[in-house]
Amino acid sequence: MSAAEPSLNALIEALRRLPGVGVKSAQRMAFHLLQHDRDGALKLAHALTGAVSHIHHCQRCHTFSETALCGVCNDASRDASQLCVVETPADQAALERTGSYRGLYFVLMGRLSPLDGVGVRDIGVAELLERAADPAVQEVILALGFSVEGEATAHALGQALRARGGHVTRLARGVPVGSELEYVDLSTIAHAMSDRR
Amino acid sequence: MSAAEPSLNALIEALRRLPGVGVKSAQRMAFHLLQHDRDGALKLAHALTGAVSHIHHCQRCHTFSETALCGVCNDASRDASQLCVVETPADQAALERTGSYRGLYFVLMGRLSPLDGVGVRDIGVAELLERAADPAVQEVILALGFSVEGEATAHALGQALRARGGHVTRLARGVPVGSELEYVDLSTIAHAMSDRR
Repeated sequence: MSAAEPSLNALIEALRRLPGVGVKSAQRMAFHLLQHDRDGALKLAHALTGAVSHIHHCQRCHTFSETALCGVCNDASRDASQLCVVETPADQAALERTGSYRGLYFVLMGRLSPLDGVGVRDIGVAELLERAADPAVQEVILALGFSVEGEATAHALGQALRARGGHVTRLARGVPVGSELEYVDLSTIAHAMSDRR
Repeated sequence: MSAAEPSLNALIEALRRLPGVGVKSAQRMAFHLLQHDRDGALKLAHALTGAVSHIHHCQRCHTFSETALCGVCNDASRDASQLCVVETPADQAALERTGSYRGLYFVLMGRLSPLDGVGVRDIGVAELLERAADPAVQEVILALGFSVEGEATAHALGQALRARGGHVTRLARGVPVGSELEYVDLSTIAHAMSDRR
């Protein structure tokens, strides 16, 4: 079966390029699509070409956008004095869902990760500094993850932004809502204690 | 970001139709393709349309094939007296890799699963009986999995085939190669004991 069907092998190879998909999963996906969901396969092909040709980066905040400026950057009702720096559009979407933030965003589309060869240039630090130099921006909020890479990225960005005299804040670290102190890790409790209010 | 980018949402929705992919994985896949692997996205789209238009079922054994008869069914050197019944092309590929079987196949493309609404008609039992009626076929080997559904399918197929006077065998149940008896489940050991040779 394997050598004789080049288009099946090509499909399995192409599916393996998806993150988190190995050869067994790719095979299972290919068989599923061909056996039970050929319509889904064609829809996926159509969605892929559509997204690749229509989705670009917002010129101002770098998130994925079909237009030159994304919906948030284009929204005159947003507070232009606040600029929130996030790692990915998924993080931005999570913040938007909270409804607690009405400012603008800058999406790094990554984070510093020297081991993976992702340096300061790859995550658009120069563009962020340029964006933050906008006189309307009063505060830059670093809403990066508290992983090792997120912390390193926040440290580097904070230094660069403060060197230019900007007001830089970070998301609060503390005990998650709904959790019992007993089960929260010690480092989080220590941060929550020192940042108490 | 979510409401404003229809082609991104369409891509995430289409990726969710893949087996084992939820909304978070689909988002991660879409972001990865758009940010780091647009070439891979186009390759995948191409592979999907190619596979859907070229891959059909072998007329004789029902496996995926680009030609009317698959490579195995077309191979005159295979032993036409043996017909091995498997659930999926993946199972067939596993058997082929062992190099221990030189007969022909019949691929059910599924197994009985009443809870999922998969009945006797859906897995092509009538086609199997027709195929097994070929006078060249001396032995039908049921190489189905030993899961509950696989066992039920093998039981139903075995009854139907034997009722037509065919010689039907099943894969041997026993202790896997390389395993310590201590760690093998009791039901497997009991089968290995009763099928000892």
